[in-house]
Amino acid sequence: MDTPDVLAWRDGYIEALDQTVLPHQLRVLRIQTVTQLIEAITSLAIRGAPVLGVAGALGVALAVRQGQAEGWNQDRLTAETGRLAAARPTAVNLAREVHAAVAALDGTALANTGQGDTTPDGTAQDGTSPDGTGLTAQQASRAEATARAALATAHEVSLRISRRGADYLRAACLTPTCTQLRVHTHCNTGALACLGWGTALGVIRALHTDGVLTNVIVDETRPLLQGARLTCWELDQLGIDHQLACDGAGPFLISRGLADAVVVGADRIAANCDVANKIGTYSLALAARRAGIPFLVAAPESTIDMGTPDGAAIPIELRPDEEVTRPAAPAGTRALNYAFDVTPAELVTAIVTEERVIRPAGTG
Amino acid sequence: MDTPDVLAWRDGYIEALDQTVLPHQLRVLRIQTVTQLIEAITSLAIRGAPVLGVAGALGVALAVRQGQAEGWNQDRLTAETGRLAAARPTAVNLAREVHAAVAALDGTALANTGQGDTTPDGTAQDGTSPDGTGLTAQQASRAEATARAALATAHEVSLRISRRGADYLRAACLTPTCTQLRVHTHCNTGALACLGWGTALGVIRALHTDGVLTNVIVDETRPLLQGARLTCWELDQLGIDHQLACDGAGPFLISRGLADAVVVGADRIAANCDVANKIGTYSLALAARRAGIPFLVAAPESTIDMGTPDGAAIPIELRPDEEVTRPAAPAGTRALNYAFDVTPAELVTAIVTEERVIRPAGTG
Repeated sequence: MDTPDVLAWRDGYIEALDQTVLPHQLRVLRIQTVTQLIEAITSLAIRGAPVLGVAGALGVALAVRQGQAEGWNQDRLTAETGRLAAARPTAVNLAREVHAAVAALDGTALANTGQGDTTPDGTAQDGTSPDGTGLTAQQASRAEATARAALATAHEVSLRISRRGADYLRAACLTPTCTQLRVHTHCNTGALACLGWGTALGVIRALHTDGVLTNVIVDETRPLLQGARLTCWELDQLGIDHQLACDGAGPFLISRGLADAVVVGADRIAANCDVANKIGTYSLALAARRAGIPFLVAAPESTIDMGTPDGAAIPIELRPDEEVTRPAAPAGTRALNYAFDVTPAELVTAIVTEERVIRPAGTG
Repeated sequence: MDTPDVLAWRDGYIEALDQTVLPHQLRVLRIQTVTQLIEAITSLAIRGAPVLGVAGALGVALAVRQGQAEGWNQDRLTAETGRLAAARPTAVNLAREVHAAVAALDGTALANTGQGDTTPDGTAQDGTSPDGTGLTAQQASRAEATARAALATAHEVSLRISRRGADYLRAACLTPTCTQLRVHTHCNTGALACLGWGTALGVIRALHTDGVLTNVIVDETRPLLQGARLTCWELDQLGIDHQLACDGAGPFLISRGLADAVVVGADRIAANCDVANKIGTYSLALAARRAGIPFLVAAPESTIDMGTPDGAAIPIELRPDEEVTRPAAPAGTRALNYAFDVTPAELVTAIVTEERVIRPAGTG
């Protein structure tokens, strides 16, 4: 795509394409502080589970640079990266990548949250920092290496998921009489959310490249319309035929036989394979099961959280009422604005990662 | 409510509350021609299956008055009322009430579509109209009587549905340990859609009056947001606690146990009890079944169409792409904007009408 990078490290700051103003504006954000990065994440200027993971790694590099400039000690760095890790709760990728990048700074020193060896004035006692900030040039170098590696890995992982998912669907759906696929998807899971080709949208792109895709039905994905704004824009750029539908219409369209498969991404996959994904996903899984078509989840291994036993244990982000109530509802209307839902494992035909195909429902 | 009438006959014209600008404006439309009425119906200024039925009866009275003023013959009246009957295809009530009101004008004369006994200059040959228009004062009088009766009947029917539905849910859901109900609903089915108390919203109002209702979860109902705009406004005025949710969130909220029952209206019920209702309804039925809670349809007997064998035979209105694509999607994006979906009978716990309770699913 002839567009700015979705997310990039620019030697001291982060550049990100502002996803809140797409598709009508191409605005690049220059992010120079941890607080700016957290604001970009909570406003969804930067979004999508895999991209949030990369942003976590870049954010640690940013924090070290900011800390060097502002004279942070190790405790302050720990506090700031902790704040970043908690910016959004549902996607496991953000916190996971922040913690991994912090751990990579200098072994275990920063893993002891808030327990840095510093005097009350912030001066390090372990001799790592001659200038007294506690943050060393070596830490900065390691953090930037981690950030660059996260960018490259996300790209590579998305291509592998895309290929594996397309192969899965070709095997599951194509027959001598059905040689083309129609796919239903939800939210945005392309380059904007994942770098590279994306996850679910990467699978769709691979099917298109293979010449076996007829068209895509895209849910608009209320309240923030990532499907309408971002997925339609990406499909447009790729020249893939698509039609937009309201979220409430998806199950009906599936019941009328307009899709051969549903493909979505994931924000967190629990140990039992329950899948948290953008609100509205569960209804597609119910409809796909009733219609007898595959419900495929495409996600990196890093989205699988073996520390979360099942969907009931996944924290579901509750976002501001105003995202739902404005401007249509009467003033003062309250909302239930959960940003994600949970699809039980038994409704998931397959989970495709860069490494494997998992079949939670015991079919497919 | 201290607001204008939803729909009224004003001796020669129709007054209607413009539902496209609620809740932020209370605008009353003065409708003086059949074309104006059709425009009000297709724009959804006038909407809701029961109200569309009444609008059909009022529209025939309006057509006769317009025809008298403009010198229509019987053929022209037949053509104009036929155009009105076809203004929206899914709700059976509109066409049914138009045809009933036309049949009541003067027996069978107008039932012979386009076969009026007129000369080429439009002069009637059967002596019914001394002024040559073919439309008589007696026809006008009969049409207005039919219109007034339709208004009164809709009111009365809604109260009976409300009472019966509330009694059904109290019997189905309340126990010695569960003495209060939380209800999930979709679209708008209150006074604005039905006159009187409404259908599904009438059931909710009756539960509230009975003191057994905790709160209501309202789907926003994309693309035209009848839930956010109209149902929240009506519940606000009634002092009933409620929260708004995106359509995609409904099934998840049900899965998390936030509702004891789903109650919706209907635009057409086929002979086999498949139910056409506002797009997004089917996903609630799927979720209610999985959660083991009742899925109740509240609708007048006039919504049941024994001439339509099943849901596959119900015409589903396809509305303009722009309702879905604007303003978020890239220019040129196409949509699949079906205004209704079909819930199969086997997912419907009960249908409550002014006359009876039908149990299509064989349970409840």
